[in-house]
Amino acid sequence: MDFNRVKGMRDFLPTDKIVREEIITKIKSVFKRYGFVPIETPVLEKWETLSAKFAGGAAILNETYNFKDKAGRMLGLRYDLTVPLGRVFAMNPNLPTPFKRYCIDKVWRYEEAKTGRYREFYQCDVDIIGTESLLADAECLAIAIDMFKTLGFKNYIIKINNRKILSAIIKHIGIKQKIEQVFREIDKLDKMIVEEVSKNLHELGIEPEKVQKILKIISVKGEPDWVLKSIKKELGDNKGIEELHKLLTYAKSMGFYKNVELDLSLVRGLGFYTGNLFEAKAIDSKMTFSIAGGGRWDNMIGKFEGKGRMIPAVGISFGIDRIINVMRERKMVKELKTFTKVMVTHIEMEEEAIMIAQDLRNEDINTEIDMSGKKLSKVFKYADKISIPYMVIVGERDWPKITLRDMHTGEEEKIMPKDLPAKLKT
Amino acid sequence: MDFNRVKGMRDFLPTDKIVREEIITKIKSVFKRYGFVPIETPVLEKWETLSAKFAGGAAILNETYNFKDKAGRMLGLRYDLTVPLGRVFAMNPNLPTPFKRYCIDKVWRYEEAKTGRYREFYQCDVDIIGTESLLADAECLAIAIDMFKTLGFKNYIIKINNRKILSAIIKHIGIKQKIEQVFREIDKLDKMIVEEVSKNLHELGIEPEKVQKILKIISVKGEPDWVLKSIKKELGDNKGIEELHKLLTYAKSMGFYKNVELDLSLVRGLGFYTGNLFEAKAIDSKMTFSIAGGGRWDNMIGKFEGKGRMIPAVGISFGIDRIINVMRERKMVKELKTFTKVMVTHIEMEEEAIMIAQDLRNEDINTEIDMSGKKLSKVFKYADKISIPYMVIVGERDWPKITLRDMHTGEEEKIMPKDLPAKLKT
Repeated sequence: MDFNRVKGMRDFLPTDKIVREEIITKIKSVFKRYGFVPIETPVLEKWETLSAKFAGGAAILNETYNFKDKAGRMLGLRYDLTVPLGRVFAMNPNLPTPFKRYCIDKVWRYEEAKTGRYREFYQCDVDIIGTESLLADAECLAIAIDMFKTLGFKNYIIKINNRKILSAIIKHIGIKQKIEQVFREIDKLDKMIVEEVSKNLHELGIEPEKVQKILKIISVKGEPDWVLKSIKKELGDNKGIEELHKLLTYAKSMGFYKNVELDLSLVRGLGFYTGNLFEAKAIDSKMTFSIAGGGRWDNMIGKFEGKGRMIPAVGISFGIDRIINVMRERKMVKELKTFTKVMVTHIEMEEEAIMIAQDLRNEDINTEIDMSGKKLSKVFKYADKISIPYMVIVGERDWPKITLRDMHTGEEEKIMPKDLPAKLKT
Repeated sequence: MDFNRVKGMRDFLPTDKIVREEIITKIKSVFKRYGFVPIETPVLEKWETLSAKFAGGAAILNETYNFKDKAGRMLGLRYDLTVPLGRVFAMNPNLPTPFKRYCIDKVWRYEEAKTGRYREFYQCDVDIIGTESLLADAECLAIAIDMFKTLGFKNYIIKINNRKILSAIIKHIGIKQKIEQVFREIDKLDKMIVEEVSKNLHELGIEPEKVQKILKIISVKGEPDWVLKSIKKELGDNKGIEELHKLLTYAKSMGFYKNVELDLSLVRGLGFYTGNLFEAKAIDSKMTFSIAGGGRWDNMIGKFEGKGRMIPAVGISFGIDRIINVMRERKMVKELKTFTKVMVTHIEMEEEAIMIAQDLRNEDINTEIDMSGKKLSKVFKYADKISIPYMVIVGERDWPKITLRDMHTGEEEKIMPKDLPAKLKT
């Protein structure tokens, strides 16, 4: 019989899991620094929740794992962490607001295997629910910048834009139909040449001069105040410009104004975004990759509640699987195969070895004891394979002293067992 | 519209999640102390894996969530962490052995809701794969005892037994049929009166004198060496007695002999156990509850590999959901609603407040900044509600000094912003 994993899913062996936990702990420390708290929701949600029409939309539902349980109820594996957040917030009207939550957990999407994507992957979201203050938007960007710093990414770019400016541009140009499709085409500018996007817009039935005009307007990017001034000249005052202006004021107070670029072509899927938009990319000589994206989404949470209230929300989502992979590829993080500091082995003195190991554990030193019964050379090989830094050898020849071996340098010294904990702690 | 959770599943709101993470971190620290490493596997497994006949068995498969994916493959949500471990070990022949892994993760079982059990719950397992050394068995018990100590449980009892002794007793008495059912009845002695179990054994067709004899033999429990001597007198030498004797020798070296009791009626479901058996219970004036259980299971992992090899294994599983609930009920752990140390608010001095908050964050102090725009009294109420220990008020009256308020005592002092980080760190 041949047992295998489900296609598109991963096992994390100790080396993978240890480094992932370490990076995730660092990421959580950033979220905590900004006053965020964690929640956790079930892997399964009712299909009614997942398929609510203001939530994920048809495309995502096609990729969602769903099934009937033994009582005939339709359930699904969550495809994101946003829908469960909406449900939780609506079910718990006494949560203090602003409710600042983080969540790092698995989601599932059945995508064609050929795309090379995983069908089980991690999302990592922070959201602030219940305040319209644009200081909340600014905090999302501050968190991204703090995370870059904490994880050690030096070169990066953060793009911002505003959904209301995009709408105003479309209106200004006089496009009244297929607005969502126009947004979707603009969104492709990141990956496609402008001629291709231009062709697609023509094919949507947009007149050539309008296509040219829209592409010209949104091609502006750079220092935010300058871009803002230029678009204001084009469109006059509007709510989106006001919102970006306020966000930039906060960026100046928080000290990250110089880290952001205003890019009028930034769309970010846009389905449920209502205001400011964010995207963060890490850059180095080899590649550019998106590390985070988000924005304001004021129209969804209230719909879960179903009382006709608008409940404002803003958030940012980090591409944690990619962050971890890049950090490992670039050797930005130490790879560990074990947490063990010392391995105790012996030559015919098992009882003494066990007592020494227990003493070390009582001193909170991560200790493994050899239970293979193999020769010393084989035990050394095992310790080497998983990079245990120290080895203790208990044998009659030196007793009551023991041998402490530094596995890295090969140096050995004979010491009394009672001096071992202090020695290993330095 | 009324959105709800899936029946039998839980949301963990911040107060729940924070305390859970704290306890889980402590538990992991115990596992690390003994040289264990974590793995993580997908939530979904192929149905062939879950339903392998040497794995969970029919009863558990009836309770397993399963479905066909969009390509028609039968998948299921894992019902335990042992089957995925078996698959991973078989798929990765280069893992160093003994392979000591821990795993704390969710599993799913569709049980009747009336039993009051959750359909999504946590398991927390440590297992040592690839060694027959009974030192591995002893380590499982040492971990349980260390965990009790680390978590603060003072009164507890650890029972041990051996599967081979149970088999030898059955054989000695001359029972040749329905052996599994006999075990299952004996297993009920923990919850049922002996007369009831006796009646059930009669109904299985066991002669009255045999029922009496078996109940008499297994009623022996207490100081292990004494129980071992008494059963040896009854049965003569056997492998199970030898294994327990060795385990007890290790218990003496490790210093926990006095913490264990040998109970010949301990069965522990027994499906796949092959040798020593463990069960740990916490006791107090109010209740007794099982905190952990496990044993040796030498016959499963090799079957995943499918090469006819026997791959020995021993492990212990902790009832982590119950441990957490009891610790919270007994107030053994501090409940937190936030990680935030200080909240910064202001009276018409938003920019200064933001800069002060960012300075605190740069000093790694968990800081929230008021973004409600509400009156000071309302902001105080919010900070009180989630128990933020300190508040900073930035206002023109005292500027360039600010007010630092201890939310617990109500004491306030005026200090310079630059002195704030040092003050909050003490």
